[in-house]
Amino acid sequence: MMIEGVRMKYFIDRLIEKIEEKNSRICVGLDPHLELMPKSLLNPEILEDIEKNQKKISKSIYQFNKEIIDSVKDYTAVVKPQMAFYEKLGIEGMKTLKNTIAYAEEKELIVLLDGKRNDIGSTASAYAEAYLTDSKYAADALTINPYLGRDGIIPFLENKSKGAFALLKTSNPSSGDLQDLILQDGQKVYEKMGKILSSIGEDYIGSFGFSNLAAVVGATYPEELKEIRKIIPSVFFLIPGYGAQGGGAEDIKAGFDINGRGAIVNSSRGINFAYQKEEFKDFGADNFAEAAGAAAEKMKNEINKVLGFNN
Amino acid sequence: MMIEGVRMKYFIDRLIEKIEEKNSRICVGLDPHLELMPKSLLNPEILEDIEKNQKKISKSIYQFNKEIIDSVKDYTAVVKPQMAFYEKLGIEGMKTLKNTIAYAEEKELIVLLDGKRNDIGSTASAYAEAYLTDSKYAADALTINPYLGRDGIIPFLENKSKGAFALLKTSNPSSGDLQDLILQDGQKVYEKMGKILSSIGEDYIGSFGFSNLAAVVGATYPEELKEIRKIIPSVFFLIPGYGAQGGGAEDIKAGFDINGRGAIVNSSRGINFAYQKEEFKDFGADNFAEAAGAAAEKMKNEINKVLGFNN
Repeated sequence: MMIEGVRMKYFIDRLIEKIEEKNSRICVGLDPHLELMPKSLLNPEILEDIEKNQKKISKSIYQFNKEIIDSVKDYTAVVKPQMAFYEKLGIEGMKTLKNTIAYAEEKELIVLLDGKRNDIGSTASAYAEAYLTDSKYAADALTINPYLGRDGIIPFLENKSKGAFALLKTSNPSSGDLQDLILQDGQKVYEKMGKILSSIGEDYIGSFGFSNLAAVVGATYPEELKEIRKIIPSVFFLIPGYGAQGGGAEDIKAGFDINGRGAIVNSSRGINFAYQKEEFKDFGADNFAEAAGAAAEKMKNEINKVLGFNN
Repeated sequence: MMIEGVRMKYFIDRLIEKIEEKNSRICVGLDPHLELMPKSLLNPEILEDIEKNQKKISKSIYQFNKEIIDSVKDYTAVVKPQMAFYEKLGIEGMKTLKNTIAYAEEKELIVLLDGKRNDIGSTASAYAEAYLTDSKYAADALTINPYLGRDGIIPFLENKSKGAFALLKTSNPSSGDLQDLILQDGQKVYEKMGKILSSIGEDYIGSFGFSNLAAVVGATYPEELKEIRKIIPSVFFLIPGYGAQGGGAEDIKAGFDINGRGAIVNSSRGINFAYQKEEFKDFGADNFAEAAGAAAEKMKNEINKVLGFNN
């Protein structure tokens, strides 16, 4: 009975408890941009024929990810592998993704798989079976795209110990093409979508008042973040766009509630490749992982500071 | 120079030429729903532990796909593997997907990979590098989700010999949650999105007046299909929802232009598992592929008939 009780804990409750245990509101992306990898780990020559060298490259990425995970694990509750970078390396890349997930779970991190999957009902279920089962290679949560509406979202919520993060107001320059359109009733599309997500989530609320259906709102749009936080208080946010894309600590403050809960802030390149930044370049390329750890610690502290938490 | 010329042919021109060569406006989905597979090919007992039996199941699916492809190849220009069903089977499933793509290309079919991928610019490029390269395991086109706007779409169009099919008005019951919302100016969201797709596509128009950026519009919404066809004449349509989801030949007529061009109509379950339908049950489960061939031929003829083509 005990085991069943633990297994059935809501994803969102596990997430919030882990955040408070680590006292960290960050999320570390695992986005292995090949051209940014340290040369000692990945010889640039083998990138001349990526298809032929998929196995070697994937092996280097796994090594890179393990070192990054070891180095950031004290400063983050969550890691977020971006699937595209693994899919790009074919079968070997997918193996590295699975091994990375298993390694992060071993280190007791929450794994948010960034795949932005979406489809009609029966097919959405197949994606949930691919990535949100209880297998050791499955993730804890998956990013999804809500363009298809409710019946394309609900299948991702079936396993209550797993979560879904639906795109809402994304961090990219063109996100407004669709998301900022103004509806007949004066609302913007992303506001309306936020309400749809909030309403679906009502059936999946955990013990902290947040639901297993979370949303993605970019740090690059702080005004929108502030607005939407007020409208949908039970929806947890993943806030990407910190660092490399331009968002700063003050920009993300409004994504949190008065208890400093309700969001995690992601940085991928800014942490993974910190060794290339002026600020951390003294670590040197060989110590890329230590540089990443320092960058993660710094980001954790910056965010705690604006929210009024001690470090 | 000749080879370069052939390779650089626009995707949309290759597609239209293949459609006219085959005199077929259908698309055959390759959606291996495990519970619908013929028992002779996939023993239902091994489905009791899918994770453990991924290799066996994937092998059966590859056999199934090869037989379906052999049987339908005279009646269709395009096959469309649905990625979720392969991803669900892990690494082994992904191998089967790659082998299926290569087999279909060998049979000179156009492969439209149904993955509904989407992300911000640099990551969308990684997906394009995963699925739209010139590798023999790459597809000819990929379905994408346009929620992120222009900069999430354009990277999929970089290789002009490949195409992208963006979701527009999808076939599922809840598609209206977002897509039918009415904007301030009286347009619906999908109409506005159709115009965005049409405008992006202007830079990728082939010699028949259609662009490499196509769109998905469901057969289950015939009125919307008619309306949107008129608004964006240069956008080619994939029309899913024929058969199992309820659309019929009269419903899809409005998706084509006056020359009978501009669309392909997809059926997945209705062809893959035709042997389970009253109409084709005399074939028997062992002859599932022949049943699929008969169903594909019938669908091809039905659609040609409403469009006024001879068979």
